[in-house]
Amino acid sequence: MMFDTAELGQSVSQSDFKARERELRTRLLILQYRTLELARFPVLIDFAGVDGAGKGTTVNMLNKWMDPRWLRSIGYRVQTQEERARPRFWRYWRDLPPKGRIGLYLSGRYSRPLLNRVYGDSDELEFDRRLAGIIRFENALVDDGALILKFWMHLSQADQKQRLDALSADPMQSYRVSDDDWQNHERYDDFIGAAEQIITRTNRGGAQWNIVEGKDSNFRHLRIGEIIADELSRHLEMHEQQAAAAGGSVAIHSGEPTSPRQRTVFDGLDLSRTVSRSDYKSKLKEYQAGLGELGRKAFDQGVSTVLVFEGPDASGKGGAIRRAIWSLDARTSRVHQFAAPTEEERAHHYLWRFWRKLPQAGFVSVFDRSWYGRVLVERAEGYATEAEWRRAYNEINDFENQIVDHGILLLKFWLHIGEDEQLERFRKREKSPYKHWKLTEEDWRNRERWDEYEQFGHDVVQYTSTQKAPWIIVEGNDKLHARLKVIETISDHLAARLA
Amino acid sequence: MMFDTAELGQSVSQSDFKARERELRTRLLILQYRTLELARFPVLIDFAGVDGAGKGTTVNMLNKWMDPRWLRSIGYRVQTQEERARPRFWRYWRDLPPKGRIGLYLSGRYSRPLLNRVYGDSDELEFDRRLAGIIRFENALVDDGALILKFWMHLSQADQKQRLDALSADPMQSYRVSDDDWQNHERYDDFIGAAEQIITRTNRGGAQWNIVEGKDSNFRHLRIGEIIADELSRHLEMHEQQAAAAGGSVAIHSGEPTSPRQRTVFDGLDLSRTVSRSDYKSKLKEYQAGLGELGRKAFDQGVSTVLVFEGPDASGKGGAIRRAIWSLDARTSRVHQFAAPTEEERAHHYLWRFWRKLPQAGFVSVFDRSWYGRVLVERAEGYATEAEWRRAYNEINDFENQIVDHGILLLKFWLHIGEDEQLERFRKREKSPYKHWKLTEEDWRNRERWDEYEQFGHDVVQYTSTQKAPWIIVEGNDKLHARLKVIETISDHLAARLA
Repeated sequence: MMFDTAELGQSVSQSDFKARERELRTRLLILQYRTLELARFPVLIDFAGVDGAGKGTTVNMLNKWMDPRWLRSIGYRVQTQEERARPRFWRYWRDLPPKGRIGLYLSGRYSRPLLNRVYGDSDELEFDRRLAGIIRFENALVDDGALILKFWMHLSQADQKQRLDALSADPMQSYRVSDDDWQNHERYDDFIGAAEQIITRTNRGGAQWNIVEGKDSNFRHLRIGEIIADELSRHLEMHEQQAAAAGGSVAIHSGEPTSPRQRTVFDGLDLSRTVSRSDYKSKLKEYQAGLGELGRKAFDQGVSTVLVFEGPDASGKGGAIRRAIWSLDARTSRVHQFAAPTEEERAHHYLWRFWRKLPQAGFVSVFDRSWYGRVLVERAEGYATEAEWRRAYNEINDFENQIVDHGILLLKFWLHIGEDEQLERFRKREKSPYKHWKLTEEDWRNRERWDEYEQFGHDVVQYTSTQKAPWIIVEGNDKLHARLKVIETISDHLAARLA
Repeated sequence: MMFDTAELGQSVSQSDFKARERELRTRLLILQYRTLELARFPVLIDFAGVDGAGKGTTVNMLNKWMDPRWLRSIGYRVQTQEERARPRFWRYWRDLPPKGRIGLYLSGRYSRPLLNRVYGDSDELEFDRRLAGIIRFENALVDDGALILKFWMHLSQADQKQRLDALSADPMQSYRVSDDDWQNHERYDDFIGAAEQIITRTNRGGAQWNIVEGKDSNFRHLRIGEIIADELSRHLEMHEQQAAAAGGSVAIHSGEPTSPRQRTVFDGLDLSRTVSRSDYKSKLKEYQAGLGELGRKAFDQGVSTVLVFEGPDASGKGGAIRRAIWSLDARTSRVHQFAAPTEEERAHHYLWRFWRKLPQAGFVSVFDRSWYGRVLVERAEGYATEAEWRRAYNEINDFENQIVDHGILLLKFWLHIGEDEQLERFRKREKSPYKHWKLTEEDWRNRERWDEYEQFGHDVVQYTSTQKAPWIIVEGNDKLHARLKVIETISDHLAARLA
């Protein structure tokens, strides 16, 4: 049995503990400081296990041993209203430690799936699905350089009973034992069975499980501290070598070698599609009225909407967005514009800043530029390595699946224009006293790489136009046509969802 | 009557509008960019007024005129669960635009007090109290350099009826009219009466009300745009002059002239108070057990706790905190340590980062160093000007009053030690392999100014030990005594609150 190795009765005497503690503590501190200074990866340490095996006291001990300013203890209870409005993993994304810091997790992402399985609230299939979600979450972090360490603190059933009895009998300690603990104890075998499945299915390099005997607190504390020190040391060395190889800073590539222009999905577009101004005026008013009504209903029913806008510079994203949200309640809709990430955002996984902006229940979040920056501008400018942007397609698909599966309406618009049309708009902007801010040096630079960007856009559509979250490509040379198509599409999908 | 000036039937023809719009738009953009670049103050623009007077469309127009990347539209509905757990102003603090940015507010802080007054849900006294709270909030921002512009959009009762009728009759627009709008219309006079009171009581330099005739949208848009441009221009000039006078950067003062040492509240302390190790051990265990139990009850009852720790370096704050939270559920307690503010925090009012950390319902938030930094280290180092730290005492008292009035248990501990004791602890830390990180150059520098810091601490106690939020001064030379006193005090107060 998997846990037999953790029922050996290992213990450490108090004097041995004192001696080893001193050395371990120094080592952990030095490692913590190296991690902080390097600031290249976050550390997530999870504590799961049998009730009474000392998860809480171990977290306290680590807070004592290390510099608590750079540690954060994170625990979860039943989802709050704000959390329920977002996909399940929203709260885990929100609470991720930034690069260089350490998060200590109690009742983390494994807690609920485990209990649901033990108490039969989820069947094998649902349990599998939940674990698969966790694996994807951990993969995204590990691929980004994070160190995840997971501890299962074990007690035999007899030892657990002894421990709970002892705590209950001691008036000073009895508050530590809850009814839930006794209930879990009665289901000890189910508990262990589900734990075995969790551990075998979610063990991977960079996010491994460590089973630790929980009976003797001295032994347990030292063992956990030593594993953390060993793994952190190994991980640090790897990253330090990478940093040294990259000349101490993140490498900036100059993009990929230019290959002859390939056909793209945009070639077949009839960009000349147009609409008359009078048609536009009457239809816009009609669509806006309809969308205003639908927006109210959506709010009442708690249906949230995420709208994503991508496309070449000057393709009319801002104008289309403004008209689309014109009739929506400004109190329940938000437009988020994304440019270069801030200091805080750079210290996190690239998806972190987007997770934070998912809408509250019944709200509309508009993303003017989005997580697709990873596979567009970051790819083009070499801010993301090839390995990074290549795996981003999957990470993005997973992110969007979670949004859609949570019941949020997700619509992705690619507003496209021709190369000549862009030039004309740039020139107009240059001359306009109140639009020239829209035009930057970067826009001209990007324009020189038009073919490349079309190719990148093609890849985006190819890899991320999924059944659940298809791209809606909008012919944009005629702004009026584009705006109507956007607002009509939003209305149709929202109406279908609310029907 | 106050609003007669806004029933003059002023209007602007479409051709005039086009001509003036062009100039205004350019002007607004330039001002917006200067504000962004200077990054010395945030701008809050509030839209209130009669239903149907065009608040929403004006916000849309401003989004069109200015660069929407640096604008944020903010609106509020009924408080969410997360918001209800904190003092009323929590959500307004959370959403403050950073320096250089502009926030556009719909249904903002005036909305609820107004409606409650109109519908008789609050009496004159309560109404006054609410307005006084708003004034304090606005004062704190204005004193910190913010520009607050408040617009009351007016319609006569007849014009409002006409407007609501017209909207209702138009199938394209009827969604804009809600039952609430008609109800408010019936209470038009009450509405106007309450609005008059709001405007007269909350008008002040730097946060003034502007009454704008809402009937003609061309007139309204231009008028509001021009007021914003004028006020922003004036405010910018003032700040630009200040920045130039300060040599383009925030002045760093070298502290105040040293005056002969004054007697302080700490002089009377018996720092030698002590407790035997065996007493300590048994009592600590007893108190921790009690607090563990109380912590559970507090969570069940939704009673939140805020614990603040201040005192000289090495006075034992960290150790006392660790023992106090030892028996609390790690999932519902958080320790926040505060050092120098981050880039994002520096772009906000100094209280902003503390507001964000107020606890959820039933949670415990521990502040290891706190908002008192403003009147301690920032005063000592000259990071805050004399005017800034002097008014901070009142701002802090107001902040703490809001916490206490909301039903949160607030306890402020000042852990004090003697000058010799500090030296001894510094020397021990120097020698300890796992404590020397706690000791920095800054600690030694601060130590040289011991008398000054005691004086600053004295002022803190003098000005901020209020009936609602008194300081608990803890004699800290004996760590064991200090820890017991802290945990006993927390237990006593929590027990009294839960009784």
